[in-house]
Amino acid sequence: MSTTSKIMPLSGFPEWLPDQRMVEQQLLDRVRRLAELYGFVPLETRAVEPLSHLTHQGETSKEIYTIRRLHDEGDAPDELGLHFDLTVPLARYVQEFRGKLRFPFKRYQIQKVWRGERPQEGRYREFYQADLDVVGDGALPLHFDAEMPALMHELLGAFPIPRATVLVNNRKVLDGFGRGLGREDTTEVVRALDKLDSIGRSGVRELLIDSAGLTETEADSWLDLAAIRRPDTGFVDEVGALGVKHERLSEGLDELATVIAASSVLPPGSVVADLHIARGLDYYTGTVYESVIDGHADLGSICSGGRYDDLASSDAGSLPGVGISVGVSRLLGRFLGGGMIRASRETPTCVLVALVSEETRAQSAAIARSLRSRGIAAEAFHEPLRFGKQIRHADRRGIPFVWFPAMNPGEQDTVRDIRSGEQVPAEPAVWNPPESDLYPHVLTS
Amino acid sequence: MSTTSKIMPLSGFPEWLPDQRMVEQQLLDRVRRLAELYGFVPLETRAVEPLSHLTHQGETSKEIYTIRRLHDEGDAPDELGLHFDLTVPLARYVQEFRGKLRFPFKRYQIQKVWRGERPQEGRYREFYQADLDVVGDGALPLHFDAEMPALMHELLGAFPIPRATVLVNNRKVLDGFGRGLGREDTTEVVRALDKLDSIGRSGVRELLIDSAGLTETEADSWLDLAAIRRPDTGFVDEVGALGVKHERLSEGLDELATVIAASSVLPPGSVVADLHIARGLDYYTGTVYESVIDGHADLGSICSGGRYDDLASSDAGSLPGVGISVGVSRLLGRFLGGGMIRASRETPTCVLVALVSEETRAQSAAIARSLRSRGIAAEAFHEPLRFGKQIRHADRRGIPFVWFPAMNPGEQDTVRDIRSGEQVPAEPAVWNPPESDLYPHVLTS
Repeated sequence: MSTTSKIMPLSGFPEWLPDQRMVEQQLLDRVRRLAELYGFVPLETRAVEPLSHLTHQGETSKEIYTIRRLHDEGDAPDELGLHFDLTVPLARYVQEFRGKLRFPFKRYQIQKVWRGERPQEGRYREFYQADLDVVGDGALPLHFDAEMPALMHELLGAFPIPRATVLVNNRKVLDGFGRGLGREDTTEVVRALDKLDSIGRSGVRELLIDSAGLTETEADSWLDLAAIRRPDTGFVDEVGALGVKHERLSEGLDELATVIAASSVLPPGSVVADLHIARGLDYYTGTVYESVIDGHADLGSICSGGRYDDLASSDAGSLPGVGISVGVSRLLGRFLGGGMIRASRETPTCVLVALVSEETRAQSAAIARSLRSRGIAAEAFHEPLRFGKQIRHADRRGIPFVWFPAMNPGEQDTVRDIRSGEQVPAEPAVWNPPESDLYPHVLTS
Repeated sequence: MSTTSKIMPLSGFPEWLPDQRMVEQQLLDRVRRLAELYGFVPLETRAVEPLSHLTHQGETSKEIYTIRRLHDEGDAPDELGLHFDLTVPLARYVQEFRGKLRFPFKRYQIQKVWRGERPQEGRYREFYQADLDVVGDGALPLHFDAEMPALMHELLGAFPIPRATVLVNNRKVLDGFGRGLGREDTTEVVRALDKLDSIGRSGVRELLIDSAGLTETEADSWLDLAAIRRPDTGFVDEVGALGVKHERLSEGLDELATVIAASSVLPPGSVVADLHIARGLDYYTGTVYESVIDGHADLGSICSGGRYDDLASSDAGSLPGVGISVGVSRLLGRFLGGGMIRASRETPTCVLVALVSEETRAQSAAIARSLRSRGIAAEAFHEPLRFGKQIRHADRRGIPFVWFPAMNPGEQDTVRDIRSGEQVPAEPAVWNPPESDLYPHVLTS
């Protein structure tokens, strides 16, 4: 299988080295663990969907990768594309398997997704997303919206990153505020408010007046609303003080207050009502979530989501959903790619069993086997090189222990901690490494 | 995101229900755990490779899926395809990252692969493979070939399936035997021997004479060789008794004897020298491995592999490899799809905390939070329905415990095992379920 053509990285398709992959795995494990503690069931959908499903929303069609068989004889019944998120597959899956699922259906899903975007920092063509959603059959209580910020808080806290804040808003607040001001369509307003972090208050004010066609008074009302940011339900009175009234606004404020109140058990400031959060380009209908990491606001929200009242619908009625998505690859690109986190060693191996001679291969293999049977990752060295070389092999990989089989009858095996140089007698059936050396862990630096 | 087009399963792209996905995850976890105990590092490569790399071997080109951006402006520098196995990506990866890897490079890789084959029972267009390989830089000691059968034995033993046997041969034995008979090219012979299990001795004899052009005596020699199957190194003398001599044959027998001898610590019959194993369509150069599951010979080998002396090569020299691949999806298709294995319950949730009333939501949430903080998967019910309905919700999902918050001051919470009906007082900060209920496990039926 020799390769003659030149081997080049593919832009937008990053690959990790094995020690980095260990970190990625451990962070994905943490997402999985937490999702399961909360009672979410695992789901994995096929990588492909019919193109007609993928393009149904229209907006993202430019990013889709289509697939076809190299020697397609033109008999393909349906054009297929790679999924670009995990929400479209979920919407299709819950319809397809509706009769076999239990509702409310709480599922998590951790998979690669593909987008044919122009690669740039933090934008990949292949990347991991981790999604958690609850889907109801016909209706979905607000309870599930209210549970989500605590889960987001725990998820973000499970990553080796600086403190993160969960930001919550409700689309009905924005909609209702617009209606209270006599405007039905808030699309342009929401689009403008989404830019507050990048272009600031005066830039957004200009957009609101010039692009969205608001009066100066209206624009200022919106900017006052968007400036409201409270870690408690005090935002309700602050909005009330703006003097705008609409039934939908009240409904949104009630929902948002319920969600924020449910988060009051978390450390103060973990979850904040932030009335400028809109998730402009997505089709949310109620609660919306974002997050911001201290010192990394430029990274944007790596954990976001919201409620879709109509995640999927069919003759059998609608399936509302609420959920979040974690941009795992974007997070890792920053923190792992940037060298801020790393694995404590390069390999799972905890013990390298030295090979004394060709004749004692079976002895070294038996020691490694005995250690493995007790859950200690161990491998026997492959060549009877002098011990210095075998130790160097371990050292280069960060393997903490080298095991020396007894060389004469009556002698005992010894094990050396190659960091301290301490070497002690040991039996493979009983020796244990310190708990912290058993498995590589994730270090922050 | 309502979908108007009809939703249909895609042939060849199977999807599991969540409880089945839990089983799949647990089996993949076992592969990962075992690989790491043996000191293999994790690797995940991008799903796509340049088409020129994928088609380099030629034979599989018909199965490749190519990808392109839906709105490709024709500026793609290189046509891309989805990988159809994990060996071609490994060969590319070790060349691309050669300077950053440690050799011998032991890696495991568990990923989906895609093949545009016509779907049929046990053949999918998207499926999981789990590969373990060791790659050397320039040379790779036979030690690594010899370690592999024990690993295969442990892997197969970690699956909830009947007893499996590991079969080993060496291509040099077949090559050398042919040369000893005065024939350089054994391609047709190997192809015929591969059919022994399906068309039997007389059918293969006919093929050897008619298609491979052997004499009757030669054909019988080959059939005698192919009939040799020994759990120990006794096969060396049995081959010797056939009277065929060649240096390459001796070399192959030596290597095979070393591999079989290293497996002698395993339960008798676990690893067998089987001289008809050839892995006909693959480019192996020495040791070859297959496996067979008791009572499921028709499934073929779900764990196979061998040595490539030239996994990859470049100006910097060759990179020989030895490894195995587990057909996880094929195995699951048979045993999980066939209902022979299943999850002990439908959800990770161990405890459903009942909701007494709207007013006590925070109390139920706090109980669930306390249980989760000690690693017990728990969720609070979302509606204050009567307890019978909440218990039924748990029962349908196989959630073993329902927690009832105290309803009056001075009372204690209680927890009910809904299988036995036993209900006892409990505190969320100290109560523990039996170890066996903590997490769903895989049952054989």
